Amino acid sequence: MTVDRAVSIKRTEIAALDAADPLRTSAEAFHLPEGMIYLDGNSLGAMPLAVVERMQEVITNEWGKQLIHSWNDNNWFALSQIIGDKLAQLIGAGPGEVIVSDCVSVNLFKLVVAALKMRKGRCKIVTERGNFPTDVYVLQGIVRMFDGQIDLQMLERPELMQAIDDETAVVVLTHVHYKTSEILDMEAFTRHAHKQGALILWDLCHTAGIMPVELDALDVDMAVGCGYKYLNGGPGAPAFLYIARRLQSGLHQPLSGWWGHADPFAFSDDFRPAADIKRAQSGTQSVLGLSALDVGIDTALSVDMTQVREKSIKLGRLFIDLLAQSCPDLRLASPLDDQRRGGHVSIRHGQGYAITGALNEQGVVVDFRAPDIIRFGFAPLYTSYMDIWHTVEILERILRTKAWDREAFRQQATVT
Amino acid sequence: MTVDRAVSIKRTEIAALDAADPLRTSAEAFHLPEGMIYLDGNSLGAMPLAVVERMQEVITNEWGKQLIHSWNDNNWFALSQIIGDKLAQLIGAGPGEVIVSDCVSVNLFKLVVAALKMRKGRCKIVTERGNFPTDVYVLQGIVRMFDGQIDLQMLERPELMQAIDDETAVVVLTHVHYKTSEILDMEAFTRHAHKQGALILWDLCHTAGIMPVELDALDVDMAVGCGYKYLNGGPGAPAFLYIARRLQSGLHQPLSGWWGHADPFAFSDDFRPAADIKRAQSGTQSVLGLSALDVGIDTALSVDMTQVREKSIKLGRLFIDLLAQSCPDLRLASPLDDQRRGGHVSIRHGQGYAITGALNEQGVVVDFRAPDIIRFGFAPLYTSYMDIWHTVEILERILRTKAWDREAFRQQATVT
Repeated sequence: MTVDRAVSIKRTEIAALDAADPLRTSAEAFHLPEGMIYLDGNSLGAMPLAVVERMQEVITNEWGKQLIHSWNDNNWFALSQIIGDKLAQLIGAGPGEVIVSDCVSVNLFKLVVAALKMRKGRCKIVTERGNFPTDVYVLQGIVRMFDGQIDLQMLERPELMQAIDDETAVVVLTHVHYKTSEILDMEAFTRHAHKQGALILWDLCHTAGIMPVELDALDVDMAVGCGYKYLNGGPGAPAFLYIARRLQSGLHQPLSGWWGHADPFAFSDDFRPAADIKRAQSGTQSVLGLSALDVGIDTALSVDMTQVREKSIKLGRLFIDLLAQSCPDLRLASPLDDQRRGGHVSIRHGQGYAITGALNEQGVVVDFRAPDIIRFGFAPLYTSYMDIWHTVEILERILRTKAWDREAFRQQATVT
Repeated sequence: MTVDRAVSIKRTEIAALDAADPLRTSAEAFHLPEGMIYLDGNSLGAMPLAVVERMQEVITNEWGKQLIHSWNDNNWFALSQIIGDKLAQLIGAGPGEVIVSDCVSVNLFKLVVAALKMRKGRCKIVTERGNFPTDVYVLQGIVRMFDGQIDLQMLERPELMQAIDDETAVVVLTHVHYKTSEILDMEAFTRHAHKQGALILWDLCHTAGIMPVELDALDVDMAVGCGYKYLNGGPGAPAFLYIARRLQSGLHQPLSGWWGHADPFAFSDDFRPAADIKRAQSGTQSVLGLSALDVGIDTALSVDMTQVREKSIKLGRLFIDLLAQSCPDLRLASPLDDQRRGGHVSIRHGQGYAITGALNEQGVVVDFRAPDIIRFGFAPLYTSYMDIWHTVEILERILRTKAWDREAFRQQATVT
């Protein structure tokens, strides 16, 4: 691994970075287990402490005591929109453009089928080979459902742009790659898709809550994303979807359950879609799941997303520099260029699975993505520069001693 | 309102009924607010007390401390199946035939689209006019999605049976009607659908947790239902779906997200459905929602569903008898025949909305379904016979004094 800058970093400098960090107090809002360096917030975000009290209130008071009255009295009916409007502020969307509901797979299905209807006569969907599997699987499900009338093209990154042509109905791309952390150019792809008359849908799973994006300013059509990574909404938190306001009245998604009706409590026999983003809803959502996510999003709103991105870049760069200094033979899977890298940094190693295990044994929680990727997720709200220092120290020792081979290592080494 | 039996019931008899109730202690498992008679468990079930501790554990320990490790260490990956297997015991299904996931609308969509593929060449869906709206809306969404290639026939109850013919792909019926509580004959419709070569899907929203059904024994093909009514799973609890084992390997549902993949963590580019019920899953589910539902289902499993049904019938019959005694002019919307009536009893009244409000003011929580239905939901696990007595007493006074017109009534009357 080579980096384009001289690296000679000392531990004292790391302490100074933490002291000067404008986000240094934000970790206090989270529970972070003693003796653990948690670098998996890109998979499951840490628990905001305020969740405990909020859930206690929702469970014992709103559900336990107020029961059915809470649908009105505690705004359960509007939760998906209220939280959506908050989340909108993190991704450059306006009020009424985001709703929180269902899981990413279901939301993607809704929007892609709706997009195909809006671009009738075009039958091509373009996506990236190696995109997050559920995105690809959902698209394959749509192709099967329409008995092959739809042409799904999965292309390698360099071929993507030219594949978007005037037969393309919708382009489905992920902004930050789940394995490599490489960022796709949202502006360029959106502009090109529109030039070709196609709609574009962005998956923001590894984007929302760790970097600002400007969906409205870039004229994005649709987006989806999940609530349990950098939004810290809890395990399996509800997902979100975005529909540009200009498209909403013409968008008809197929999962037209009663929550998408203009007047659900009229109990009429005919579906009439809500005039606004509510038409993207299907059925009743987990109030418990929504409430925890609400706390996570409040926590993200309490900081400046520009500062979050700045710290995210610095954490990633420090990790890469320290690796270059301590483990120069490691292969980096993520871009060196700060502007092209998202919130996590990945390395490739033939023993990736075993090394991931050894890191976890040493209290450094990271994850493995087959066949050879180890992901180090840095969550600027609770990851410190010193966490990075310790991580590289431990990783270096594991690699040097080939610790994943030796049971004895588990007993000897400790997190320093 | 006329009943076919002489009614002259005294309060002392009611106390005796409660004393002899084999389920008399099961209410202790729930939080029931002081001064409230909660008759809306058919909409949102009461909170099992054990939920508080379980959720505390899931939030602070499983999420807060064990974080990502909980996917394996606390069985988060298998929750939908574990809970599904428990729920299966309540509805006459076998292990591996039920999974808990998503909302009813989404599950219905999955199964109906899959059923249409399994009955290729047939284009007719039969359902009941006045079925729960989301069921109808989802079917209408499917018709629109397939550009009118599907013929949705919504019929009044008496015409339903003959509409199921050899052009019918799938029949979608609700077992217990959400307004009238009238039971459809599951055995007769299932047999007739099969005779015609059609598949049948039952909506068990008002069935699961309050009466036993025998899905396997009756050869039912598919079913859906919700977790937040008589299963006491909490607001917006995850829903469930059932697929008869004999159909699973040939069933391809369109929402094929990564959780439905045979090996999700292989991260392959091609969808390959899980061999079993897991193929009915789409994406990541709310662990908080699932965990609360798990407690609700455990509570239901701690009692005998035959006893629950027996008490349910007796509660309904007592209510009807007391109404006949005290409010003989009221119009009953539910069947008098115990065997044809589900867990709630509904009455019709032109002032239904206002009377519902007056009952709620008096601490009797019931709900209104437009245009003129008041639903009284009796949950045998926590509704007592004395609750019924008080309810009729209060309702009689409201009707006699036309209390919904008079603000003054609110101050004077109290729950006795």
